[in-house]
Amino acid sequence: MEPNFVYETLQKVREVSPLVHNITNVVVTNFTANGLLALGASPVMAYASEEVADMARIASSLVLNIGTLNAQNVNSMVIAGKAANEQGVPVIFDPVGAGATTYRTDTAHKIMSEIKVSVVRGNAAEIANIIGEKWQIKGVDAGAGNGDKVELAIKAAKISGCVVVITGKEDIVSNGETTYVVSGGHPILTKVTGTGCLLTSVIGAFAGVEKDVLRAAVAALAYYGIAAEKAAKKTAEAGPGSFQIEFLNQLALVTEEDIKANASIKKI
Amino acid sequence: MEPNFVYETLQKVREVSPLVHNITNVVVTNFTANGLLALGASPVMAYASEEVADMARIASSLVLNIGTLNAQNVNSMVIAGKAANEQGVPVIFDPVGAGATTYRTDTAHKIMSEIKVSVVRGNAAEIANIIGEKWQIKGVDAGAGNGDKVELAIKAAKISGCVVVITGKEDIVSNGETTYVVSGGHPILTKVTGTGCLLTSVIGAFAGVEKDVLRAAVAALAYYGIAAEKAAKKTAEAGPGSFQIEFLNQLALVTEEDIKANASIKKI
Amino acid sequence: MEPNFVYETLQKVREVSPLVHNITNVVVTNFTANGLLALGASPVMAYASEEVADMARIASSLVLNIGTLNAQNVNSMVIAGKAANEQGVPVIFDPVGAGATTYRTDTAHKIMSEIKVSVVRGNAAEIANIIGEKWQIKGVDAGAGNGDKVELAIKAAKISGCVVVITGKEDIVSNGETTYVVSGGHPILTKVTGTGCLLTSVIGAFAGVEKDVLRAAVAALAYYGIAAEKAAKKTAEAGPGSFQIEFLNQLALVTEEDIKANASIKKI
Repeated sequence: MEPNFVYETLQKVREVSPLVHNITNVVVTNFTANGLLALGASPVMAYASEEVADMARIASSLVLNIGTLNAQNVNSMVIAGKAANEQGVPVIFDPVGAGATTYRTDTAHKIMSEIKVSVVRGNAAEIANIIGEKWQIKGVDAGAGNGDKVELAIKAAKISGCVVVITGKEDIVSNGETTYVVSGGHPILTKVTGTGCLLTSVIGAFAGVEKDVLRAAVAALAYYGIAAEKAAKKTAEAGPGSFQIEFLNQLALVTEEDIKANASIKKI
Repeated sequence: MEPNFVYETLQKVREVSPLVHNITNVVVTNFTANGLLALGASPVMAYASEEVADMARIASSLVLNIGTLNAQNVNSMVIAGKAANEQGVPVIFDPVGAGATTYRTDTAHKIMSEIKVSVVRGNAAEIANIIGEKWQIKGVDAGAGNGDKVELAIKAAKISGCVVVITGKEDIVSNGETTYVVSGGHPILTKVTGTGCLLTSVIGAFAGVEKDVLRAAVAALAYYGIAAEKAAKKTAEAGPGSFQIEFLNQLALVTEEDIKANASIKKI
Repeated sequence: MEPNFVYETLQKVREVSPLVHNITNVVVTNFTANGLLALGASPVMAYASEEVADMARIASSLVLNIGTLNAQNVNSMVIAGKAANEQGVPVIFDPVGAGATTYRTDTAHKIMSEIKVSVVRGNAAEIANIIGEKWQIKGVDAGAGNGDKVELAIKAAKISGCVVVITGKEDIVSNGETTYVVSGGHPILTKVTGTGCLLTSVIGAFAGVEKDVLRAAVAALAYYGIAAEKAAKKTAEAGPGSFQIEFLNQLALVTEEDIKANASIKKI
């Protein structure tokens, strides 16, 4: 994919300021809202079953995240998801911890079956769990390459009918037929809570302005990784607190030049 | 209003450290608590119907915010509000998103009718919604001046019997008879989530030490705007992450000199 | 206690990365997760009654915090606590605001009676409340020394059968027979919300790798205080916003030398 497309989509987000409706976990609400604002999107958090359908219908995208799920919020997610589906609003799903407890696994499956999800984003274990597979960490994950993850992404996309995003050292995006590998980011992202969750919401913002959700997801990943790299460089040795704040800064500051110089997207 | 009054009220908050009981949304709890601590107030968040009356009765003020409302919290807000009313504890209300969904609109009306609210703070659309009017954005909002907003504030104050605060490029405060325009702040405030919510809680802190809630609200707005300006100046070009942190710093650091040099309050 | 033990336990946390299951309040979730990540632990927040037993069983420790309690979460805390007890997973309890409302007091007593708690951490008033005593602030607290607090900690430990941690200007740790005073920290900690709550979770992380919970708690307190001192020194005069971020940095950066030079632990 051409870096131009990444920048153009980013600019569209900044101009349109899409309303991203998040039903997310209590750990990351503030960070997600601030990250979306820094990007130029309009975040809204609304959870009550009485209003989520109304909110999802006027949103540009709906992001569902089960990080701290409970019965009420899952109920609201399903209501919101169905309203979004009716209205053609893309639904982005983050199955946090699918596989860690039976309740999370069951809920992830429920959401995938009752709602038409446009993009699902998780780590390899979560995505494997979504399609009923067990993800085996084979040897040292980083050294073993992306071979298995690419296969997993393609398979999960075919089975689920969604665009699948597997994030890790490198990120894989597939709709089952076309697959991209996006490089970037920085290991310190794993030292700040909610960086995965925010990424899912950023994909939501990009999908809110670009109908081709495969390309929207790729553009979002490239942008996000570049912001992280810039922030990591500026706060090297300072620690994760400083990185977190500088990352919010950089989400607002990524330029066309940054993208041209640093975007690393491979179609495979 | 004389800048002296702003500083004196700020000093009273710092000395008395009023207990501000917040029933607020999940996005802003941490930022609100840290902002109130930086100011010198004592924040407490308590939501359970089993305890909110007890907490509201010992508080200096009660702040209600429907940003992520649900049936349980609305129930708690009404219980807490009635307990506060009985005890003479001022209630400050932030009708976040009133008008965006029917549930928010209905809830905002419910709170305004079942509780004696001392101060209601929102943007023009939220305040218009509170009194059953539709706020029309006429031309470029900023260029069109405050004419309509001043009228709206006065009308809303007369109808509701509250002190009304409409925030925006300039802030309007009215009790229906006396009206102030407070200038200050910085556009980057709109890039950090919860700056409106925190402002409502800061008005709560000031109303917790100053019985004249009209003057308390004006002093709070002037103080808040000055802290934002100082923070924006110190973090120019750094981005919204750095602004957010420096704003917390400046909330703790505003001096008498800052207020004398920068407070801009007009009685109209 | 030898500073070596503090550093060795810290290193064990960094190597093992214990899974700390938190059922905590909505104000501090993000800060707690980021603090635990900075330390090197693996935080997880899970609240639903459907999954807390599963999560607690695979955790290295369980942290319960009633800062924004409600009936659902209290129910989940009891379920999780019992599962942890069965599995031998240490339970750390933070009775936030016990004594402030009847509901908090009753809930704190319920948790202490239905669950075998390994460590309870609070201020003197909260700990006194746990054992049904009224804590009288006698004169200027700081000036009056720790005499009463040491007595209180020993008594509370004997009555409750837990390791008791009373934090304040100095921290007291007792199992009823052996008692330590740990000095360190900085007054600006009281200007950042959740520093007490995060400390409780940090004790959880240390207790997740060290079976002697008395020693684990002492090591955690020494480490935490040193990180705070370093952060306060680096951000002197900047304000509480900057301190908060630098504190997260320092939680990641405390070295063996820092501990050797600054740990102040007295057995009494």
